Amino acid sequence: MTDCLGCMLANKKQEIFVIFENDHITCFLDHEPFNNGHVLILPKRHYEDVDDLDVEVAYSIMDASRLISKAIKRLYAPDGITICQNGGVFSELNHYHMHVVPRYEGQQFAEFYQDEPLVRNLESMQTVTAKLRDSVRNVIAEG
Amino acid sequence: MTDCLGCMLANKKQEIFVIFENDHITCFLDHEPFNNGHVLILPKRHYEDVDDLDVEVAYSIMDASRLISKAIKRLYAPDGITICQNGGVFSELNHYHMHVVPRYEGQQFAEFYQDEPLVRNLESMQTVTAKLRDSVRNVIAEG
Repeated sequence: MTDCLGCMLANKKQEIFVIFENDHITCFLDHEPFNNGHVLILPKRHYEDVDDLDVEVAYSIMDASRLISKAIKRLYAPDGITICQNGGVFSELNHYHMHVVPRYEGQQFAEFYQDEPLVRNLESMQTVTAKLRDSVRNVIAEG
Repeated sequence: MTDCLGCMLANKKQEIFVIFENDHITCFLDHEPFNNGHVLILPKRHYEDVDDLDVEVAYSIMDASRLISKAIKRLYAPDGITICQNGGVFSELNHYHMHVVPRYEGQQFAEFYQDEPLVRNLESMQTVTAKLRDSVRNVIAEG
């Protein structure tokens, strides 16, 4: 779909901070991160919901969620990671996207689902990108 | 792990309302559902986090999330479905589990991450189980 923001993002027709990509999916930083290292996984082809995905794309998304989780853990050692996908009217993009979100004790994840802006002392997108890409490379290199 | 509640639930050593299962995973009703049709997907073997999973189990979980989503959509036609997995210290079970949660406009999903009990007019677990198992069978039969 040529007018879909998700398609444009996943295919780098808009500026994104790419962490990892393959033929099926692109992983890049959420532009309003819940914490440093908050990544979105989008299919390059247009799908709206989890049950619309082709199976090889679905498996690529699962693989990427595991790879990105490992890389986030090495880099930031969060207290936990939440992986979530909001479908139907609750999808902000109308294009399938899975969030991989590092979390820390003392934060309320309810805030993820509220509209108030988060107050965080975050690293720049460029810094997170460089560090997280490096962490992904290390995870892949070590199998 | 013999003392793991998640292992006991996934292997039916505790009472659960099974919606679907195969060699790798068991899908059953959350005992404190956010809405009718709120399902948990648990691996039968013990894993804590998404990056601990064996790849065939990870793919089984992805497949099941797609199957259960289709069955929920047919049965309840929610406004959307959120799929989420809370890892690390944010996992209530210390055993990997993915939530598949039907949602409706007007509800605040932030409540999913808060401790206040939900006020809902819900069907019985038995009723949801019978209807959702039937819906899963229909989805599988139609390929």
